[in-house]
Amino acid sequence: MKPKLTLKQIARELDVSVSTVSKALRDSIEISEETRQKVKAFAKLYNYKPNNIALSLKNRKTRTIGIVLPEIVHDFFATVISGVEQVANEKGYNVIICLSNNSFDREVMNMEMLANGSTDGFILSIAKETQQKKDYHHLEEVINQGMPLVLFDRVVDEIKCDKVIIDDTAGAKKAVQHLIDIGCKRIGIITTVDYISVGKLRTQGYLEALEANGMSPDEDLILKIEDMQGSEKEIAEFLKTRDLDGIFAVNEQFSTSAIRGLLNKGLKVPDDVSVIGFSDGELAHRFIPSLSTINQHGAEIGARAARLLIERLERSVDAEESYQTQIVETSLIERESTRHK
Amino acid sequence: MKPKLTLKQIARELDVSVSTVSKALRDSIEISEETRQKVKAFAKLYNYKPNNIALSLKNRKTRTIGIVLPEIVHDFFATVISGVEQVANEKGYNVIICLSNNSFDREVMNMEMLANGSTDGFILSIAKETQQKKDYHHLEEVINQGMPLVLFDRVVDEIKCDKVIIDDTAGAKKAVQHLIDIGCKRIGIITTVDYISVGKLRTQGYLEALEANGMSPDEDLILKIEDMQGSEKEIAEFLKTRDLDGIFAVNEQFSTSAIRGLLNKGLKVPDDVSVIGFSDGELAHRFIPSLSTINQHGAEIGARAARLLIERLERSVDAEESYQTQIVETSLIERESTRHK
Repeated sequence: MKPKLTLKQIARELDVSVSTVSKALRDSIEISEETRQKVKAFAKLYNYKPNNIALSLKNRKTRTIGIVLPEIVHDFFATVISGVEQVANEKGYNVIICLSNNSFDREVMNMEMLANGSTDGFILSIAKETQQKKDYHHLEEVINQGMPLVLFDRVVDEIKCDKVIIDDTAGAKKAVQHLIDIGCKRIGIITTVDYISVGKLRTQGYLEALEANGMSPDEDLILKIEDMQGSEKEIAEFLKTRDLDGIFAVNEQFSTSAIRGLLNKGLKVPDDVSVIGFSDGELAHRFIPSLSTINQHGAEIGARAARLLIERLERSVDAEESYQTQIVETSLIERESTRHK
Repeated sequence: MKPKLTLKQIARELDVSVSTVSKALRDSIEISEETRQKVKAFAKLYNYKPNNIALSLKNRKTRTIGIVLPEIVHDFFATVISGVEQVANEKGYNVIICLSNNSFDREVMNMEMLANGSTDGFILSIAKETQQKKDYHHLEEVINQGMPLVLFDRVVDEIKCDKVIIDDTAGAKKAVQHLIDIGCKRIGIITTVDYISVGKLRTQGYLEALEANGMSPDEDLILKIEDMQGSEKEIAEFLKTRDLDGIFAVNEQFSTSAIRGLLNKGLKVPDDVSVIGFSDGELAHRFIPSLSTINQHGAEIGARAARLLIERLERSVDAEESYQTQIVETSLIERESTRHK
């Protein structure tokens, strides 16, 4: 019983990256001729079989949908899964979930594994590291081989496929407009670094809302966080020296850290400072004060992604139809963390 | 391209349960001869192929571990996954996750799908409905067919396999002993109905702690919850009419609902009532007041389960070794929701 050789093992043996192996096996011109030959020779020697996706498609349908997610600690992804599962189960499909843990290599390996006869198509939100690298060859590959892909939440323009997104900019604008409507004058934002597409879009919504109301943005009130770990401390430090009456935080975690920072400073929420978040999970509704937030409708996103994927699976594979991008509208949820007019 | 017939479709066509179809195809004597013949004839007519697990094992290893979970909204399961992933990735295994959503049928179907060439073995926490039905034939089946299974958290004595559990009773006893140590005299418990094995064990720990300290249990201070939905209201009602100075809640959700109920009643936590939870997720450490709790060490549970599974996969399949039950010790985390001595 000889274990199957994996991309990772080849990469380790030849001391190159998983991405290089994956590209070399597909004869990508991004990889030097020498490396390509080396990888292919090694793969042949050990009888490595790349995905015979076309073959597997001809022979059988798995009636299984593969979801690849960056993480599942966030309730948002859990609600997306529930939406996918509901539609998939109604239509007689199973659902398999894999986590990339925001790693490019794991995303590539997960897709390789799932494409290898375990699923008919993919629903995917792109890993942080993949967005940083801008290397999407593994996504192009499954599409080229006839396996449909639906991207959601963290999507990229470079990949042509069905997409389900929320209007992050409009959602963020809604949140900040709400703070302005209840009378906030000095509004800060706690967001992520710009290469996280949703963070960038939400920062843009914040800036647009200020501008639309004739308020000029102040760089000093913008905190961009790179890493969740240590974010609580970073937020507390940021708040210590700023005099704010409103805060927009781009996720539940940042919102709750902000509230704790404000309380530690002796301020009251929402009496002294109103705080609004983004995404409506268990933390948002259970927290005291419960969080005003922008609902991303994760279950709806998941349901639409599943419908798009299944429609494409059940049509003829060769149908030349243009891809859709569906936008799920966000909505404002007023709770206890923002002042009431 | 003819879609593969699923267990569920056969069940629907013949108007029997998924479990009946699954058992009939294996010639289980629990199913009447007539039904067995009917199911087998139908399956044959439509060319249904049950898992050829033995065959698939002989032909290849997938180097993939399948995790089947009741739900993922709970951070506990997310931490278990992270523990499994870490060990699996170190040892060159991929991880696939499926959710039963606490449904017996989905658990059976997920295992059928994964056993059908997608994984080498299973790590599983049993669905609520399966525990209610006490029908474990799908678990016995994969074991009999040579696919190792490791159960964790929600385990049952009936299935002989490797298990990783925490000592729920001892953990609960630790929590209640802590309340007693800081001077609580009237201690209530918010727990689940008894057929959820962990709920039952934690209730037992509560009773044992009271007894060990010469305090007699009062039925009126025990709240057993059937369904998460509506639990917040149920807990608020319960607290309204009880005069307590300590509460042990068997999960984070119940703890936070209890704190909200107490605050609404005009009481202070921990000054008037100390609250201690069980399981240490994001909600516990972000909540204000942050929750004192019992840490279940989910990542350690996942890591041990992965190690047990991989060891069994990499030994000879025929090795006649006795199964292990590993117990991961819980620990007390003191935070803001319990008084300090």
